[in-house]
Formats: sequence, C-alpha cells, structure tokens
Amino acid sequence: MILRIDRWGTELPPPTDPDPAGAAAVQELMGGRFGEMSTLMNYTFQSFNFRGRQGARPFYDLIANIAAEEYGHIELVAATINTMLTGASPIDDGRAPDAALADVKGIGNPHHFLAGGQGALPQDSRGNPWTGDYVFSSGDLVEDLTHNFFLETGARNNKLKVYEMVDHPAARALTGYLLVRGGVHQVAYARALENLTGADLTKMFPTPRIPTEKIPECQPHIERGDHLRLYRFSPDDYREIVAVFNGPHPETGEDLEVVDEAPEGALPNDLPPQPAVFAPDYAPEEIVQIAQRLRKQAGLPDKPTAKVANDDQGMVDEVKDKLTS
Amino acid sequence: MILRIDRWGTELPPPTDPDPAGAAAVQELMGGRFGEMSTLMNYTFQSFNFRGRQGARPFYDLIANIAAEEYGHIELVAATINTMLTGASPIDDGRAPDAALADVKGIGNPHHFLAGGQGALPQDSRGNPWTGDYVFSSGDLVEDLTHNFFLETGARNNKLKVYEMVDHPAARALTGYLLVRGGVHQVAYARALENLTGADLTKMFPTPRIPTEKIPECQPHIERGDHLRLYRFSPDDYREIVAVFNGPHPETGEDLEVVDEAPEGALPNDLPPQPAVFAPDYAPEEIVQIAQRLRKQAGLPDKPTAKVANDDQGMVDEVKDKLTS
Amino acid sequence: MILRIDRWGTELPPPTDPDPAGAAAVQELMGGRFGEMSTLMNYTFQSFNFRGRQGARPFYDLIANIAAEEYGHIELVAATINTMLTGASPIDDGRAPDAALADVKGIGNPHHFLAGGQGALPQDSRGNPWTGDYVFSSGDLVEDLTHNFFLETGARNNKLKVYEMVDHPAARALTGYLLVRGGVHQVAYARALENLTGADLTKMFPTPRIPTEKIPECQPHIERGDHLRLYRFSPDDYREIVAVFNGPHPETGEDLEVVDEAPEGALPNDLPPQPAVFAPDYAPEEIVQIAQRLRKQAGLPDKPTAKVANDDQGMVDEVKDKLTS
Amino acid sequence: MILRIDRWGTELPPPTDPDPAGAAAVQELMGGRFGEMSTLMNYTFQSFNFRGRQGARPFYDLIANIAAEEYGHIELVAATINTMLTGASPIDDGRAPDAALADVKGIGNPHHFLAGGQGALPQDSRGNPWTGDYVFSSGDLVEDLTHNFFLETGARNNKLKVYEMVDHPAARALTGYLLVRGGVHQVAYARALENLTGADLTKMFPTPRIPTEKIPECQPHIERGDHLRLYRFSPDDYREIVAVFNGPHPETGEDLEVVDEAPEGALPNDLPPQPAVFAPDYAPEEIVQIAQRLRKQAGLPDKPTAKVANDDQGMVDEVKDKLTS
Amino acid sequence: MILRIDRWGTELPPPTDPDPAGAAAVQELMGGRFGEMSTLMNYTFQSFNFRGRQGARPFYDLIANIAAEEYGHIELVAATINTMLTGASPIDDGRAPDAALADVKGIGNPHHFLAGGQGALPQDSRGNPWTGDYVFSSGDLVEDLTHNFFLETGARNNKLKVYEMVDHPAARALTGYLLVRGGVHQVAYARALENLTGADLTKMFPTPRIPTEKIPECQPHIERGDHLRLYRFSPDDYREIVAVFNGPHPETGEDLEVVDEAPEGALPNDLPPQPAVFAPDYAPEEIVQIAQRLRKQAGLPDKPTAKVANDDQGMVDEVKDKLTS
Amino acid sequence: MILRIDRWGTELPPPTDPDPAGAAAVQELMGGRFGEMSTLMNYTFQSFNFRGRQGARPFYDLIANIAAEEYGHIELVAATINTMLTGASPIDDGRAPDAALADVKGIGNPHHFLAGGQGALPQDSRGNPWTGDYVFSSGDLVEDLTHNFFLETGARNNKLKVYEMVDHPAARALTGYLLVRGGVHQVAYARALENLTGADLTKMFPTPRIPTEKIPECQPHIERGDHLRLYRFSPDDYREIVAVFNGPHPETGEDLEVVDEAPEGALPNDLPPQPAVFAPDYAPEEIVQIAQRLRKQAGLPDKPTAKVANDDQGMVDEVKDKLTS
Repeated sequence: MILRIDRWGTELPPPTDPDPAGAAAVQELMGGRFGEMSTLMNYTFQSFNFRGRQGARPFYDLIANIAAEEYGHIELVAATINTMLTGASPIDDGRAPDAALADVKGIGNPHHFLAGGQGALPQDSRGNPWTGDYVFSSGDLVEDLTHNFFLETGARNNKLKVYEMVDHPAARALTGYLLVRGGVHQVAYARALENLTGADLTKMFPTPRIPTEKIPECQPHIERGDHLRLYRFSPDDYREIVAVFNGPHPETGEDLEVVDEAPEGALPNDLPPQPAVFAPDYAPEEIVQIAQRLRKQAGLPDKPTAKVANDDQGMVDEVKDKLTS
Repeated sequence: MILRIDRWGTELPPPTDPDPAGAAAVQELMGGRFGEMSTLMNYTFQSFNFRGRQGARPFYDLIANIAAEEYGHIELVAATINTMLTGASPIDDGRAPDAALADVKGIGNPHHFLAGGQGALPQDSRGNPWTGDYVFSSGDLVEDLTHNFFLETGARNNKLKVYEMVDHPAARALTGYLLVRGGVHQVAYARALENLTGADLTKMFPTPRIPTEKIPECQPHIERGDHLRLYRFSPDDYREIVAVFNGPHPETGEDLEVVDEAPEGALPNDLPPQPAVFAPDYAPEEIVQIAQRLRKQAGLPDKPTAKVANDDQGMVDEVKDKLTS
Repeated sequence: MILRIDRWGTELPPPTDPDPAGAAAVQELMGGRFGEMSTLMNYTFQSFNFRGRQGARPFYDLIANIAAEEYGHIELVAATINTMLTGASPIDDGRAPDAALADVKGIGNPHHFLAGGQGALPQDSRGNPWTGDYVFSSGDLVEDLTHNFFLETGARNNKLKVYEMVDHPAARALTGYLLVRGGVHQVAYARALENLTGADLTKMFPTPRIPTEKIPECQPHIERGDHLRLYRFSPDDYREIVAVFNGPHPETGEDLEVVDEAPEGALPNDLPPQPAVFAPDYAPEEIVQIAQRLRKQAGLPDKPTAKVANDDQGMVDEVKDKLTS
Repeated sequence: MILRIDRWGTELPPPTDPDPAGAAAVQELMGGRFGEMSTLMNYTFQSFNFRGRQGARPFYDLIANIAAEEYGHIELVAATINTMLTGASPIDDGRAPDAALADVKGIGNPHHFLAGGQGALPQDSRGNPWTGDYVFSSGDLVEDLTHNFFLETGARNNKLKVYEMVDHPAARALTGYLLVRGGVHQVAYARALENLTGADLTKMFPTPRIPTEKIPECQPHIERGDHLRLYRFSPDDYREIVAVFNGPHPETGEDLEVVDEAPEGALPNDLPPQPAVFAPDYAPEEIVQIAQRLRKQAGLPDKPTAKVANDDQGMVDEVKDKLTS
Repeated sequence: MILRIDRWGTELPPPTDPDPAGAAAVQELMGGRFGEMSTLMNYTFQSFNFRGRQGARPFYDLIANIAAEEYGHIELVAATINTMLTGASPIDDGRAPDAALADVKGIGNPHHFLAGGQGALPQDSRGNPWTGDYVFSSGDLVEDLTHNFFLETGARNNKLKVYEMVDHPAARALTGYLLVRGGVHQVAYARALENLTGADLTKMFPTPRIPTEKIPECQPHIERGDHLRLYRFSPDDYREIVAVFNGPHPETGEDLEVVDEAPEGALPNDLPPQPAVFAPDYAPEEIVQIAQRLRKQAGLPDKPTAKVANDDQGMVDEVKDKLTS
Repeated sequence: MILRIDRWGTELPPPTDPDPAGAAAVQELMGGRFGEMSTLMNYTFQSFNFRGRQGARPFYDLIANIAAEEYGHIELVAATINTMLTGASPIDDGRAPDAALADVKGIGNPHHFLAGGQGALPQDSRGNPWTGDYVFSSGDLVEDLTHNFFLETGARNNKLKVYEMVDHPAARALTGYLLVRGGVHQVAYARALENLTGADLTKMFPTPRIPTEKIPECQPHIERGDHLRLYRFSPDDYREIVAVFNGPHPETGEDLEVVDEAPEGALPNDLPPQPAVFAPDYAPEEIVQIAQRLRKQAGLPDKPTAKVANDDQGMVDEVKDKLTS
C-alpha cells in the first residue's frame, strides 16, 4: 500500500511562455522505454515479485524503496509538461470554441490538445504509449539488478538529451533534478550488484561520460548533498537499505548516505484552467461554485484546506483574473 | 510523492496447489483495459493533470486519493498471481536445470516462466501488455468522472468473470476483496457526477446486475463495512473528499463514510524461492548468506527487521526446508 | 451511406456443442491480417479514397460494391463465433456467479469470456487486435488491385486452414460459403487487373491449388452458381461493375455474371442469453419485461416485428425454457 | 448485410487550399479511440453479439441502426481528409517524379503521402492505427449502453477540439455535421439507459458543457431538426427503435423523432487525380481511356451512369483541364 | 553487404515426433525481447550507426562481426521450430483438406498453422511479433556495450528456461549450442566494457548462476573449445576484434581465442513438405516436376547442385515416399 | 550462416547539409511495411521455412539469394539516414551539453536524437517500429511469390515517393540505386511466378507506371546493366537461380542475367562523431586513445586495417579536425 503526499519532489517554476514542441519532447521522460513510467513500474513489479525476501531483505528493501521515489518522478514529469502546455491555447472566452487551437496545429503532440486537456500522457516523444513490455522482472536478483543499472544508464542518456533539446525553465528544473536523483539510483544498483557479486563497477561511471557536476541546473541539488542520499520513502518499512547502499560515491568518493525519511519536497503549483480544451470545464467558474457549495455542506472551511505554491504569482493570477472576472 | 507501506490491503492465503492457467486469467485484472494498472494510472494521470484544483478541491482530492488506493490493488493482484504460480516448477535440485518446466509447457502465460520468475507481469489474460493508451485524461471533469464510472463498471464485470473462471483460494480472496473496494469507487465516481451535474445515477447500480452481497467471498469485507468506506490514503492531504463522498449507498441505502486514515491491512506472505526459474537465484541460499553478511556489516539485528505473515506455515516452510537443507 | 438489412448472407446452423477452442481459431477470419475486417476495410478505404472516379467508374464501382458485400462477411464470421461459444458456460442459474467459467479456463481466447459476453471480437486467432495498419490504400489503381488479388489469395489460404482445423458445423458452413464468395472476389480483382493492364492471370488460379469444387461445404453455393456471380449491393449505384467483371471464370470457363440486386440471404438465428457472462444480463428475463413494456408504450405489436430463423429449434428452445422457467 | 448508397450524409465543399497539417489532425476523428471507426465498430460488434435479441428487440434495433449511420460518418471523415489533401502535391507534369512532395516534407502525417495517395487512413492524429482493442462489446446491455454513452461523450470532445484546431472549410463542415449527429447518438444511448434502468441522465447534457447551438456550422443541421432525429437506415428492419428513442431532448426539451427512412444526403465530390502520388495513376488519362473502352464493350452509355456534385466546379475542373490537356 | 552460406551453424536432428506446444515456446528465442532477432538487429543497427569507426575500429569490428554470427542463430532457431512442427499435420492425401489440422486446434501458436506453413515466425512465445522497439542503438559506445551485456544475460536466462520447458531433441540441440555461443558473446561484451572503462566484470559470471558446463547438451561444443572462440565471419574484414576479445575466460580462466574464419557448420536438413498446409503446395510433386523442367532448360545437372544432410534418413524419407508414391 | 563484407552496395555522398526532416521520411524505406527490413525478413523467413527445397531448388535459391542482397539494402538505408543526420547537432564542444539539440526540437523523428545517436532506427516515417507481423511466410510457394511481387511493387511506390519528398543528395543516391535493384527483384518474383504457373505478368510492368529510366539517379546503374542482373551473394551456394531468373526484361526486352558473384560495391564513409548526442562518446578522442592502445597491445599496425571512403573529404575532415584538435 501507499500513502500519498500532495507535495512535489522539487520546486518547479510557474508557467511562462508555453512550449508545446518542448512538452512533446519531455514526454520521452514519461512514457519512453527509459522514462519514469519504466523506472516506476520495473522496480514496482520486481518488488512485488521478489521471492524469498526475508532472506534477501536488504536487496528487496532497496528495490521497493526506489520504486516509491519513482512515483514522485512521474508526478514531476507530468507537472513539467502541464506547465509547458499552459497558455498554449487562449483563455479569452471570446475565442473558444472557435479557432482556439489553430496555433498548435502541427505543433507538438496532437494528443496533448485533441485527446487531453493540455496535460501529460503516458506516451513517449513519438506519441507512442508506454507499454507493459518495457517491464523486466525476471525474478533473478543478479539479472534484475543488471537490468536496473542499464535502465538508469539509458534514462540518464535520455535526460541529458532532453536537457539539450528543451531549454524551457520547467524542463531545465526537471532534468537538473532528475539527473541527480537518477544518478543516485544508478549508483545504488551498481553498488547492490557489487555487494552481491563482488564485481567492481566504479569505473563505469559516469555514463554518458559527462559528470553531473557540469550541468548548472544540477548544482542546487548537489550542493544540498542529494547526489549522495537515498531517502527512505516509508513510515516504518524498508529499513535494511543501509546494508546495500553504502561506501564511497563512484565519481566523487564522498560517502553515500541513507536518510531515514522522505524529503520535504515543495508545494505544487495549481495550474490554471484552459477553457479552450475544457480543462476542467468550458466554464470553469461553474465548477468552483459547485465545489464551494459542496464544501460548505460538508462543513469544510471557506478556504481550501490544501496549500499550493502559487497563490500570488505572475501569469497564473492573470489567468485566474480572466477566469473569475 | 508517496510513502510505501510494506503491508497488503487484505490477507491472502499462502500458496497451495499451483494454478498457472488460473494465474494467466487473473492477469486480466492486472494489465487488461479494465485492470488495476488502468484504474491506478487513469486516476494518477487525472490527478496530475487536474487544472484549477484549488477551486475544485473536493473532486481533485477524490480522484487523487482513489489513485493511491489503486496502488495497493496492483500489489494484491501481483501477490495473487505469484501465490498461484508458486510450486508450478519443482524445487527438487536434482531436476533443474533439466526438464523442470516441462509440466507447464502449453499451460497458462508462457512469459510467467520464460520471461519472468513465476511472477506477475503488466499483461492481460491474452499475454498482451498494458498500454498507456488505456489512460483517459481529458482534463474535462465531467468527462473524466463519466469515464471513471464506466471504467469501474467494466472492472467489476471483469472481476466477476475472473471469479467465475478461477476458483483457486487466492483468486477468490482477491476478487472478493476487489469487488467490494471497486464497488466503493464505482459509487464514489457516480456520486461525484451526481454532485457535479445533478443527474441521479442511483438506479444504474449494480452493474452487472449481481448484488455484491451474493458473493460469499465479499461477505467479510461487507460485514466490516468496507463497502461503505473511503479511506484517506495520506498522512495529511486529500481532506476534502468528504464534500463529495457522502449520502446513501445506491444499493443498500446505508450512509457512505470517509475514514480518516489508511486501513491497517495485513502482513504480506514471503513467497518461497523457485530455483528452477532462478528466482531469486539458482542457489537461493547463497543470496541469503551474502545478505546476512551485509546486514551484519551494517549493524542490523540478526533477524530481518520486517515481519511477514508466514513464518511458520505449510508449504512455504516445506520449501524453505528443502532450500536450506 | 449504407442501409442495413437484418439478414445473413447465408444460413448457419443453430448452436449445438460449444467449441471455444474452435471459436478462437475462427477469429483469424475476423481480425487476422487476411480476415474479413481486412477485406471490408481495405476496399472501403480504397473506395473512399478513389480519385478521378468518374473517369474510372467501372473500377470504382467494383471496389465499392465488393466492400459492401464484405460487411455481410464480418457479420457471418461473428455469428459463427457466437454460435460456437453458445453453451460454453452453464445457464443453470444455480451455478452463476460461482464457478460458471471454470470449464473454459485455459481454453480458447480468454477475452471471449472475460472481456466479452461469449461473443466475437475484432481479434485474430492469437487474440491480437485487428489494426488499421492492415489497410493498403495507395490510391494507385494497379497497385491497389494487385494488393486486393493478393489479399484474397491469403484470405483463401486462411479459410482453407480454418476449415481443416475446425469441424464444428457452424465453422464448416461459414468456410464453405466464404471460400466460394471470396473466390469470386479473387477472380474479380484478377479480371480487373487483366482489363487494366492486359496481363493474363488466369493460370494463377486456384491458389492454394485446391479447386473449391473439392470442398463439400462449397457445393450448395456452387450448384446455385454463386461462384460466378457478383451481386450489386446497392439500390441504385455501382452499375458499371459489368464493364470489368465479365468473361470466363479462370478455373471453370463458365461465364461470370453480375446480378443486379443483393442476394436474398437467410434469417439470422437469435442466439440465447448466456447469463453466466451477463449477456445480455445476469437476469435476462428482466430485460425482456422492460422491453415489452417499452414496446407497448410505443404502440408496437405484441410480438417482435422482426423475424428470426430459430423460433422453434433444438438447443435454443431448451435454453429459452430454462431462462423463462 | 448492407446495401451501399453512393451519396454522402451531408454536403462538403470542393477542394480549395490544401491543409495537410489539418488533415493529420482530422484523422483523430477517423482512427482515434473516439473516432468514427470506433463508433462504427463498437455498435457493429455489439449488434452482432446481441444475445436474446428478440426479447430485447428495441435495444438491439437501436444499436444496430446507429451502427449503420456510422458507416456514413467514416465516409465523410475520409472525404474531408481527401478534400484537404487535394492540391498538396503539384499536378504539373513537369515536376513529378522530381521533388513533387518536397513541400510536404515534415508536414502532417507522412503516410498521407508516402504510404497513401493523399488519402484517408484508419489512423489517429498521431499516425497510430485504429485497433480492435478500441471495441467494447461485453454483451451486458447496461454496460454496453454505458460505454456507448461515454464513447459519444469522448467523441464530442474530440470533434469540438478538431473544430477549434482546424478551420479549413471542409473540416468545419464535417465537424458541424458530426457534432449534431453524434449529439443525437449521445442522447439515444442516454435515453436507452434511462429506459432500461430508470436513472435520469438528462442533467449530464451537454458534455463538454458547450451547447451545440453555439457552433455556427451546426446551425443548418439544427434548423433542419437533425438534432432531434434518428433515421432508420434500413429498407425494412430495425423498426422498434421508436420504443427507446422518444421523449424530450435533454437540452432543448423538444420531442425526439424517428424518421422512417435514411436521409437523402448529398452527391459526393469526385476529387481530382494527384499524379505525383500516382492516384489513380502516374498518367491518369490512360485509365480513363481504358475504362471508356471497357464501358463501351459492356454496352454502357457514353457518360458515367453515376452523378457527382462537381461536374463544373472551380479547382476541380482546373485540375481536370491540366490532366486532359 | 553479406554473402550467404547454405549451411547451419551446428547439426540438428531430423524430425521425429512433432511438438507444436514446444515449438510455440521456442519462438521466445526467435522473436522475444531477448531472442535472436533482437541480438541480430541490435548489433546490426549499432554497427550501421557506429560513428568514428576508424578511430574505434576494434570495438566496431567486434559488434559488426557478432551481428554476422547472429544471422546464423535466427536460422537455427527457425530450423528447430520447423523440425518440431514437421508431422504435426498428416501427410495422408486422403485427409487434406478435410480435418487435417483438427489435432492442433488449441495447441501451440495458431499462426504456425493458420498463417504459416508449419514454419517459424518472427514472434515470441505469446505469439506477439518482434518489434523494432527492441533495438537499442544509442550511439554511445559504453552504453551500447552495457546494453549488449545485459541483452546477452537476458538471452541466456531465456535459453535456460526454454531448455527446461522443452525436451524435444531439436530444442535441446539448439539450446545447448546457443548457450555456448551466447556465452561467448556475453563474455565479449563484458571484456569490451572492461577494456574501454577499466571496470572488472569477471565476477558477474555466470548469470543466471548455472555454469554452462552443467548442461549436457553444451558439452560437445565446450569440448571443441567453442566456449572460448570468436569466429571471424567475413572474408577480409573485422580483423581488429583481437584487440578487444582476449584475456582469460571469466569462468574457466582459459584463454579466449579469435578464429580467423567462419566455422564449418553442418549441412541443413531438407524438411519434408506438409501438404495439409500447402507447404510448398497442396500437390508438392507438381512443383518438383516444374522445377526439374526449369533446371533442365537452364542446363543444370539432373541432381540438385546443393547438398543436404538427410538424403536417406528415417521419417523424412518416409514422408518423401508418400509424396512421390 | 552469413559472411559480412564491410563495403556498401553502392557509393553514397559524404555528409553535407543535415536534413533531419528528410531523414525521418527516409525511415519509411527502413522500417515501413514495404521497407527494406520487410524485404529482408520476408525473404529470410521464407527461405528458412522452405520445405522440400531439394525438389524445388531453383525457387529456394532465388528467394534465399535475394534475401542476402536485402541485408545490403538495410545497410544503405541506414547509411543514408546517418549521413543526413550528421551535423544536425553542433560539434562545438562549448555548446554541449547545453542547448545543443534546440535546433531540432519539433523537427523530424525525435528518437533520432533522444533515443539514438543521430542514427537510423528500425522505424517507419511515423516513428512506429517495424514489426514481425509484416512478415508473410505461408510456405505455399505460389502465394509467397505472389506476396513478394506485391511487396516489391509497394516498395517501389514508397521509394518513388521518398524520392519526390527528399532531395538531399544521399537520399537521391539511395533511391536511385534501390529503384533499380528493387526493380530487378520485382521482375525476379514475377518471372518465378510465370515459370511456376504459366501466367504472363509482363504487362503489369512498370508499377507505378513510371519507367525507371525516367529517374536520373537510376541512370548510372542502368547504364552499368544493373537493372538486368541478379548477383549471386554466396561463395558456393544458390547456383540454381539461373533456372528461374532468365528470359527478357518485361519493360526493355533485354536479356536478364545472373552474375556469379557479389558486386564489388563501394567503400563506406566513416561518419564523424556527434559529441552532443554522445556518439560514440561525449569525448570521442578518449575512445580513440583507448582503441589505439588496445590495438598496439594486440600487435595490430598503427593505421586501422580497414579502408573507408572518406580519408580526405570535406566536412568529415573538418569535423575530425575539431574533434582531434
């Protein structure tokens, strides 16, 4: 089972200029063979299928716990795509439902607009869906770990290239963060393999052979030490990861560290409606009114019980103004 | 972000007779269009993509919170499949790697044995992978809720039929549980639609038109009141579901109820190694020894820090005996 | 546009012993690369996309008109599969929703039972869905006709093999009919190519090199002359097929013939409910009562306005007896 | 069986400026999950698989009859795409087979040009093929109707967004028409559900919450009353739809109406050859000559026996002039 | 470019008892994610896409040369499947085209009979097609080699399991051979990685942790030294593999060796016709006569110019007798 | 088995201006239904599965031998795509890993950059992967040959259209060559069918109805006589193709000819590194140094043992200069 926390793993900038072509590229990090859907589901299924887990507890805990972090990664990729798509259709009521999407004809992933509501999808950069055949769960621990090391390697490659292709601030914040966290997972699986077999994989780092340290957007996370830390994403379980995730970082030599709780993360942005695609409605203010009435009936306070990051920020407010004026 | 809890949503029986053909059928509840991968990922993406969530908070909270419960459902489906596959290959060392899988040639899903380690896969009953194209996330709240109501309806159909096809005790325990919990979600989305549009969907229940009450394996859960309860799967968030999930149950007229914490669940079974498929190894005892050494080095206690349900149960011990003798 | 006629292209026997494994094989003729979905959709799209059709009217009319006949073929394949699946689950109320599908676990296409209601699906014999990528519509008339000749050749191969694999009377009635009608289409496209290019394809018949005359179930259709006839499936259009479909039959030398109307066909069987899979309901008699009330309100006569073939036939009545007792 | 009528459900404008990027978007209405291939094939299979149809005749007739109308819809979507692609390659002989397609490199769906002859394909806006897995045919009448209501809801969403994205006159004529006709089907399935279960779905209309009346291109059809009418697409069958399709329209309150025959429709446009893609040939005039000779041999009149809309219209004639000069 | 040699990489036994269910399982080694289509195409594309190959020649030569050997592996997998399917349909003329395939209804991969002529297909054990998305060709040498090492690891897992599931003599001969040769490739990629990065992967062998030496069917190949040898599959090229493939074998410590020519291999078996599936014809003797006449006209000798292994062996002759009697 | 020769079937120009959108279109000739992966794999599987090959040796030899040539064709398509992608990312070290791929955002196939290293992939022009379901191998010789004739017809259509869409010199060199060689294969299969059945297909040539002679880039190959020649791609085998491939060319009347050895071909270009996508590395010069050391240790000469075409050509050298300075 899981508990869900309505916070993001890291801060993302609020929407600025939309970038639908960039958002289509970022989809590779969601639904590509090496995207976060793949890391999430590979580790999830491997943990579900782990046989003899009591005897091999440190390895089970490692895989199960990293799976938990990956859920937060698909959340961030989605948030990035949604941020980049915000504003790609006009919010001027007068225009919808006329030619409100004319500007994005032939731009980016058409499903972002025709199928979805300017939102993220479990697809890759080609617009092809993520598939369960991307999951490798052989049950053989050495093989599963070998796969996971390779998967993180491919994921790192894809993140670097999306970084190079898309310079939208949200995409850069995302890839800067994911490169650091994915790097930790790459190290974790290598170390698990080393501990299990005796092989020394240290010299295979970094792959691709660009030190994470060279990417400016990685710096804040490295400075905080997040390139060395595995967080324990559970109230009480997965306590034996310390038995596997330890020793020096293969690139920097610093000590790896297990943090015994989840990171604090950041408040999510509440992205504004996009009425041209009916998200969340053609007339979003009506939903607000209904929700307010239901909240009242339920005895909830006047203001939403949840906090978001952007109560008073740039474009978002501007959008809200239009929608509520 | 999520926190993971190493417990199951409900108790499952330990392995008894293997049922690989039944396990192949149960896969429909994992990776079919209406399987738990679909409920998990539909609600997950809809919550990620929810625009204007502050204004529509009760609806956002409902979808986001049900998504969290669904993770526990894919876990249970996987556990059921793994239980049913346990023992399908011999653990007698003398036989592997000879004709250890001869008995399952042509039986069930070949990937359970050839690709996986007698473990669950994100595939349906045909052996076809789950695909991201099963996700509907239009951003339009009325539509997404309509979809979700339909999705739960199809899911209920599939669960009932798997119930009829597979009488293995693990499959029955699974479907008995899922029918009750999925029924709650079906009600939740109908009620959300009612609260949003004013339409009255009460008379569409039950679909298929078999009252859950008629299924014996549903009884323990109904008696506990679990057909009426939505649990809040979060330490602190998603508090506004009460504004939507309320009123009488459409079939029984009893009051719906929000429980302000996750259910306690049950300890998982630690399923025994299946050395013929190298899960977790051809010689599992070697991994145990390595793990034990690593645990010692890390200062962990002699016994695993985690509890499982089956420290002293039937076949499982028998398997362990063979493996450790 | 089309008008639909509630009759079958040929008579099919009523349900006898169920044959779910055979039904799974017959699916190849529905959703396989060379199945009737493919013939229907290839000719449909080619006719939609036909450019300069006034100038090439006889060829356009030929393709458009054969497309129309193919709709009747997917209907017959579906009816055959449905017939073969009838009775595969018990209709004894006492059993459903218990282990009603236990007998078909591991037998045939699991989607016939888990996803569908013992009904036909747009899938092939592997359970893989028909895909739009099976459609070839190049717009180049010589190529499209070459494709169609090849498609009918492959279809004939598949029909012969399904004939050999499945000896259920419904499957035999189906393949006997389709071999004759598909044979006519194979001739039609060959003749169109001959008329267009001057090449002589006569000696390529038959392929596979088994004369249709050797298949007993083809005889009634051959005796009626249906191996020579192209029917015009339209009230008023597609009159120029006579300009292409003419000359001697390549195998028998008899004259090809255009019939200026659709064939009379046969009354469909009304297949009985299968309550174990909720088709059309868990308690079918309730739907009958509702329908009867609605019919009355609408001023319709007491008896259904439509005729079916099986008002008083064997197993079907028996099923009905059980359902109405 | 079907009879085919060589007329379109509504009039479409003749080709003007080509719009290949728009044509790629319109493909969503053909081969998308909610496209017309899906409505056609869902209702077709549901009607094929309908068990106990005599007892539930009004519901069977409704589904079977709407299936028939949908064939006319895939025809119109195809015609629209073909219209929009006309002129996208030059017809100037001097250029082909040189760089005749250079202008569409990277524009729209490459299969429109490389695989097809500037023609429609059973693909969606991503260029992914329609798949049989989009068909839901559970056999359970309540579920199938719930699905169909949801399917029409998603289809309406997609049509509105294509409307907003593509302002080519053919696309607008298409979506204006389909929104009205699809709206009728959405109502029909809701009403069928209401009549079957007693639930009242009236307040779920419209979804998305834009009244069809606000779309200018819908007006001619609404003024003619086509938002209230279900046509009977059959010479003699499906007479019991009146028992289900009745009562007030959920949005306007006007009475729903069954028309006892198919609509008259409109003459199709004969779209001009596109020799650069060899449709119907590199030298189309040769096919005309061959066809003319064959027609003569068959005793057909000098002029084609079929009428088309565009015997003397703008660009089409211009194209013909070039081809025949 | 390639030159093709009409010999097999190793000897396979002639057909004995057919094993269609086993043949379906062996398909995993053909078209599965880790099958020989994948090894062939991964290395082929990596060699095609290798940039700066002059500077990195030893690595290019290694990948390009192993690609060449893999073609011989898909050939052997196909030959094995064909051998196992031989005799699965009767060759008794009296039976075809009657119920000749009744015995294989529901057994194995239906496409082996309905689509193919009892022949191998590019599908996996589920009957799902091999897909180009199984190819990883990042261009980054470290990553491509990491992938290849992982791919060979997964391939070894699959071969071992097929070995355990299928004890047909042809399947055993195949897997015995492929385990040895795949083992060499696994070593080759590990050594290339070691030479490139300095990491030591020796201790990761063997994975799965069963020494190849324990498999009886591997012995003849090990005794011949084939677990140590990389053959150069080219008349003149790929001479620099010696710079990478050298040093001790990670399991045995013996010296790795490059053999400067292709292995001699073995004569292929000429598998007998299966007239029930029209392979190569319903009346195979007619093709023989035509071929003989054509050969004569071309001045070829009376006997075929090519040699096969089975001119006078068991069942094959028996089949021939029947066909020519 | 095969031997590989490190030469190309024909000469290709060195990289000039990159054309990523064109490269995406050329992918149709690689991984499309009618691309070279399809011709290669269709003929390969047909040859593997050929039953009774001694008796039908000339036909077996023909198919097996053409399969061998097709490997050279996928190599050329890959080389063309790689050539066209060269230079699409900057090689200026200062820029990577910053916005090095910004210029190709939204251009061409995103997998060329995000998944691959500016290299060819087994995908079509939509970015969809080649699939094993494109292989037709019925075992029935007449059908397989009919298919192959149709396949070459569709392939010719696609080549002509890619020719028209992409005027990059590499694409033109490729299509000019493939049109001539594919034309020979189209003739070969037609002639085989004629020899086998007696039908005369001469008049079906050319299809599409543009004589290859009209394409300027075909001229050098036609002048050399390559439109008439089938090369024998084997040291010793497939000698009986002469019994089938003979007689006059259907378009020109010239005599067809079998050449008893493979063509000489041309030296490949060594395409320069693209460090922005890490192909073959972020710092390619490091790999060169490592390789040089390994070569020395192995006793290889100082200069690479293999020759390439571009030791001193334009842009390639320029790239090398930058990389080695």
